[in-house]
Amino acid sequence: MSLTIKLTISPRIINLNCHERNRTKFPAIRPKPIYHSNALNPILYSNKRPGMFQASVSGTVIKSSLIEPDGGVLVDVIVPESERGSKTLEAESLPKARLAKIDVEWVHVISEGWASPLKGFMRENEYLQSLHFNSLRMENGTVVNMSLPIVLAIDDETKESIGSSKDVGLVGPEGDLLAILRSIEIYKHNKEERIARTWGTTAPGLPYVEEFIAPAGNWLLGGDLEVLKPIKYNDGLDHYRLSPKQLRKEFDRRQADAVFAFQLRNPVHNGHALLMNDTRRRLLEMGYKNPILLLHPLGGFTKADDVPLDVRMEQHSKVLEDGVLDPETTIVAVFPSPMHYAGPTEVQWHAKARVNAGANFYIVGRDPAGMGHPTEKRDLYDPDHGKKVLSMAPGLEKLNILPFRVGFTTSNLSAKAPFLCIICHFWLASVTTS
Amino acid sequence: MSLTIKLTISPRIINLNCHERNRTKFPAIRPKPIYHSNALNPILYSNKRPGMFQASVSGTVIKSSLIEPDGGVLVDVIVPESERGSKTLEAESLPKARLAKIDVEWVHVISEGWASPLKGFMRENEYLQSLHFNSLRMENGTVVNMSLPIVLAIDDETKESIGSSKDVGLVGPEGDLLAILRSIEIYKHNKEERIARTWGTTAPGLPYVEEFIAPAGNWLLGGDLEVLKPIKYNDGLDHYRLSPKQLRKEFDRRQADAVFAFQLRNPVHNGHALLMNDTRRRLLEMGYKNPILLLHPLGGFTKADDVPLDVRMEQHSKVLEDGVLDPETTIVAVFPSPMHYAGPTEVQWHAKARVNAGANFYIVGRDPAGMGHPTEKRDLYDPDHGKKVLSMAPGLEKLNILPFRVGFTTSNLSAKAPFLCIICHFWLASVTTS
Repeated sequence: MSLTIKLTISPRIINLNCHERNRTKFPAIRPKPIYHSNALNPILYSNKRPGMFQASVSGTVIKSSLIEPDGGVLVDVIVPESERGSKTLEAESLPKARLAKIDVEWVHVISEGWASPLKGFMRENEYLQSLHFNSLRMENGTVVNMSLPIVLAIDDETKESIGSSKDVGLVGPEGDLLAILRSIEIYKHNKEERIARTWGTTAPGLPYVEEFIAPAGNWLLGGDLEVLKPIKYNDGLDHYRLSPKQLRKEFDRRQADAVFAFQLRNPVHNGHALLMNDTRRRLLEMGYKNPILLLHPLGGFTKADDVPLDVRMEQHSKVLEDGVLDPETTIVAVFPSPMHYAGPTEVQWHAKARVNAGANFYIVGRDPAGMGHPTEKRDLYDPDHGKKVLSMAPGLEKLNILPFRVGFTTSNLSAKAPFLCIICHFWLASVTTS
Repeated sequence: MSLTIKLTISPRIINLNCHERNRTKFPAIRPKPIYHSNALNPILYSNKRPGMFQASVSGTVIKSSLIEPDGGVLVDVIVPESERGSKTLEAESLPKARLAKIDVEWVHVISEGWASPLKGFMRENEYLQSLHFNSLRMENGTVVNMSLPIVLAIDDETKESIGSSKDVGLVGPEGDLLAILRSIEIYKHNKEERIARTWGTTAPGLPYVEEFIAPAGNWLLGGDLEVLKPIKYNDGLDHYRLSPKQLRKEFDRRQADAVFAFQLRNPVHNGHALLMNDTRRRLLEMGYKNPILLLHPLGGFTKADDVPLDVRMEQHSKVLEDGVLDPETTIVAVFPSPMHYAGPTEVQWHAKARVNAGANFYIVGRDPAGMGHPTEKRDLYDPDHGKKVLSMAPGLEKLNILPFRVGFTTSNLSAKAPFLCIICHFWLASVTTS
């Protein structure tokens, strides 16, 4: 029996244990672009093009040549600078709802159109469709994917204080006015049902549930958002947080004829890089001339034992500096969504959001958005369900799903024997017998 | 303030407590058609038309003029009599799986096409779509509703004994060979996930879960059914169990231009009758000339404190003999499905199955397929969610949903005040102020 593996895996990186917050292995984060040659820099950071990405609540249609945003229009609900003063004054006059940190992450996500066509926190009809069908039916009868309820919980007191007001001002954790929620609707927050239908379990110990749902209020507040100014975190990583609009423009500027997105919440390693290069090779073989990789680590809430974003971004930088990925054909950016760890339900959200950012190919591996069962000694989800559910998901028919595959071969093996990455639980290869 | 209610409610009937199995209130079941004039009798029970409803596994297209069955073809997987002998011999030679009583009910449901386009117990791709999306995408891209997983659980020993066989013989609880399952697929039965996603809770005490899922095996066996002969119960009620094919033929024979279905698992009363007559009146006002009512009590598994089927059928008979409903425009039949008590998820199944039987209007009331929370003092589901979810359900766009409404009026009331039936928790009216 002979075994030939074409993978080149750097022990320095693959031995990184993502279940330890071992920041000491990495130097302090450097607030510089991940590539010195990052083609986005002159566009994003130069003062020569003020207002180039100026936001508008008017919902300008942004279409890439590759894939339409869901609903046909990329949602952008950030108030134009010229209206900021008056809207802020108005917001001050409204009843208020206080946002938790997680809510601000969702405001960020909605405001830039990752959840298009969603223009705000879900009202009940959207919530019910998301919960039961993982999709929304549009007025014209088309269906868009929407697998996670994107909702804002409020408590009895807040509900009481809102009274019969149609609009509400949303206040950040620091007390600053962030947004107006228009034409609001308040409906019951049945936590048990939300949890059961989203996670497929109600077992105690689900990170998102424990942190944000269990302590939340018994009401949900839906409505259309107007966000007073772009959400920033001032953590030295904001320059990585490119909006779908920015990404689409950049794909077009680079004349991409295919964009393939790779979501990850764990450190990237050379095995991943090999996968991404292999995907590029496959796309070239399919006839695409200029496939662009969107390397897109998740930047919102992750559970306590995941590696923090700043460490991951630094580590991305290191891997990329090794030259394994080509800066000319790669864009690294941060996806601002929080993690639910809801497996097959959540992987649809991860893919759908990238469609809105202009990706028409999505790489999916083993057990996407999965985790161990919180109370039983097993994976919470069947590791193959994410890939299967994603391939069948309503509203994602237009997206090309690329199951994880890296070519390496063995001889005289009687069965397929994929190689499991000890860091991220990705299958690094499907092994073919010869 | 004046209140005028046009409802006529018979105290004798409305005082029936459906939470007691009080059979003594009713005389023994009479095995006669519910109407002496039941137009179906000569077709169903005459020997003059042998083979009129002869089953076929070839899936003959049965289209009514009103509404297509899901997938365009009414599934019929009952083996023709001419092939019964050879198929039975073949079934005897196959590895066997034993069916529980509930499984036989599902074999019945599938065999007659209530679950069209489903041709057998779900394979994993159907199961996952049902669980996550409440719908199935067909090969031509169209979507049909499929909200309940219709699956067959087997234990480790049965899985072992099936080995690598492609086909399996299905044996009834009495040991009789009932069917062949073709091109089988065995996959994991993750009970927790199935329960959570179907019921929106995993609380102990859900009747279907306790009775059938908790004690079931850890594997699901999917495949295409060939049912050796029509499923009969020999309980004196088989003549009420009309198949979708029989119902469609009867609607066409009566030249129905609208068919409105009323699902119930509780005793019918004059309030219901008023509702049904009111619905007919509304349909006539809409311009329909010959609306036919399908009065369709559920006949499969119900929880222990529901009124048993034979008592209910007898009680239907009594109400109908009062002449409140017109036999010329009403068909009473039994829907052979078991109850899940899964609220908004299950009401879609109830409606979808009636589409397959040719109904193009479906009456939905308060808290359909709902029940009390098994461990908390509240309804398990928001009473309005069933109606809302049904109206948004993928694959049911072609069905006209009729929310429960009976016209009666009040004067000088400041708000709507529907009247809640104490028996079945249906809102008997929406009250308009005048």
